[in-house]
Amino acid sequence: MLAAHYAGNRTMTVEAVEPSPPGPGQVQIAVAYNGICGTDLHILSGHMDARVDVPAIIGHEMSGTVAALGEGVTGHAVGDPVTVMPLAWDGTCPACLAGNRHICQNLDFVGIDSPGALQGRWNVDAGLLVPLPDTLSLKHAALVEPTAVAVHDVRRAELAPGQKAVVIGGGPIGVLIAAVARSFGGEVVVIELDPGRRERIAALGFTVLDPQGDTVAHVEEWTGGAGADVVFEVSGAAAAVLGAVDYAKVRGTLVVVAIHPEPRPVNLQRVFWRELRLLGARVYQREDFETAVELLDAGDIPADALITATVPLGDVQSAFDALTAGAAMKILIDVQAGQETA
Amino acid sequence: MLAAHYAGNRTMTVEAVEPSPPGPGQVQIAVAYNGICGTDLHILSGHMDARVDVPAIIGHEMSGTVAALGEGVTGHAVGDPVTVMPLAWDGTCPACLAGNRHICQNLDFVGIDSPGALQGRWNVDAGLLVPLPDTLSLKHAALVEPTAVAVHDVRRAELAPGQKAVVIGGGPIGVLIAAVARSFGGEVVVIELDPGRRERIAALGFTVLDPQGDTVAHVEEWTGGAGADVVFEVSGAAAAVLGAVDYAKVRGTLVVVAIHPEPRPVNLQRVFWRELRLLGARVYQREDFETAVELLDAGDIPADALITATVPLGDVQSAFDALTAGAAMKILIDVQAGQETA
Repeated sequence: MLAAHYAGNRTMTVEAVEPSPPGPGQVQIAVAYNGICGTDLHILSGHMDARVDVPAIIGHEMSGTVAALGEGVTGHAVGDPVTVMPLAWDGTCPACLAGNRHICQNLDFVGIDSPGALQGRWNVDAGLLVPLPDTLSLKHAALVEPTAVAVHDVRRAELAPGQKAVVIGGGPIGVLIAAVARSFGGEVVVIELDPGRRERIAALGFTVLDPQGDTVAHVEEWTGGAGADVVFEVSGAAAAVLGAVDYAKVRGTLVVVAIHPEPRPVNLQRVFWRELRLLGARVYQREDFETAVELLDAGDIPADALITATVPLGDVQSAFDALTAGAAMKILIDVQAGQETA
Repeated sequence: MLAAHYAGNRTMTVEAVEPSPPGPGQVQIAVAYNGICGTDLHILSGHMDARVDVPAIIGHEMSGTVAALGEGVTGHAVGDPVTVMPLAWDGTCPACLAGNRHICQNLDFVGIDSPGALQGRWNVDAGLLVPLPDTLSLKHAALVEPTAVAVHDVRRAELAPGQKAVVIGGGPIGVLIAAVARSFGGEVVVIELDPGRRERIAALGFTVLDPQGDTVAHVEEWTGGAGADVVFEVSGAAAAVLGAVDYAKVRGTLVVVAIHPEPRPVNLQRVFWRELRLLGARVYQREDFETAVELLDAGDIPADALITATVPLGDVQSAFDALTAGAAMKILIDVQAGQETA
């Protein structure tokens, strides 16, 4: 089979690898599609070399079908469409014991800390599988994982129907949060710097603002002087963090979704003055994954608008390069393309 | 009567003023004691000149007895011991309408935005009065307001019995938070830079750490590797904000109590990674005030240890100077001292 490896030095290589059979308790998946995530770009950039064992088969946003069952696996059948919730927890750390296994203190994020989905046949523990309905295309199903991130963020914010949310940053996760918030009954404004992205987001029916305009005045007027119920910081930009609190109502919520590798200046005076709540939100729980499947299956997520391109596994480097250049939203890798000749 | 005024230029003056009778709906209070707060020191430093009308009678941590009733006031009698919850809200802004009157978007903080308690006779709206039990001394009752701040902070953190809290900063509010957290069933560690304060806090039965030691390792060990349930940032120091997240458990809470006039670098990576919750907490609600009265009356608050000195109104400048120099915890002004000759 073919597998894509992160080989260090900003390079993805595609090589023939002998597939191994699924171990006890594992399921072998014929991976159909794998979306490339911002974290994968971080890996390619070398920023995560301390965490990733090079060469590494990465990839964690995927869909596929069951190809084989390991010893002792029940409840799955060859041919079943599935995705994977790529979190393996130890079950014994204080976070796990307190019920927060999804952010286990020793979490194995499958596709980063252990081999991922950019390979023709992928063996994973059966417990990580999430079944897919036949009505959901495998292309759309490759968006379940990032949609689950968005569901987790919106659930964590406790966004109630009728509430108003500001999403700062209109990349794939920002658009997914906006779509999930809308499907949960929220009203959403997206703030995005790139004019091309603004146009695409507006076409999805969202109000979208240029951060260079007076966005605070807009939100003030939109909310009758109260401020937004929830603000999602998805941009990763220092300036966005500093300004984010200005959109929030008294006792409003700011969810930190983006990864900020450096400490960021935060207006704690405003946090204090308005008794704001700032929440970190990371990955997802099983419930988020299941809700993401439902939302995609119901057509509540603009999957086709988000998928800029689908390219064969052999073109994985060009896909990474296009995303790094910021020229695309979501690119799917067709992992089966070319496998039959490998 | 005598009244103390902030006169600008780091100066407090004491002058004879003609008392006015209470207006309709007001109560005239014979102020007994008034504690000096960090905010009063900010006023003296000139940092709040844009907000305070000079000359201003300030003071908002007080106790006293009812001296006269204005037209239409019922439920109070001359001689009743009282304190004042010094918040006047408009009742019409979005925050008030959403039930957050204590942080009204147009809040009048009595003693800052309107005249305060550093005067022999003080007229306030009857609705601001909080009755005191006869068993509580008027000296201790002058600590009700700062204790209510601490109650609000601990309630906001949702600290449950048996949970572990770290309090960064062992000034008056830090010690009050520690005492309230303990009375609510929490276990508390205080982190304080000043050796003299550390000694006094240890004498109150708290574990107290020098921030120059390995406080993170201490908290890790204390909590069995989990981290603290709640961290209170009371120091106002930038370095403390940066390090505060390192004490918190997965899904732990960080309460921002101190005023940070400048944006502070916050480790959002840690907030994200551990799904922390960072809460602003400002002033108090009626329930907090009533709980503060109960805790002081029950002897759960180390009032005598906190009150470094009690000085007559005529010495108000020296009291402010001593506090500015950091040589004291809480200084009470005896507002009645000297009134009979004024």
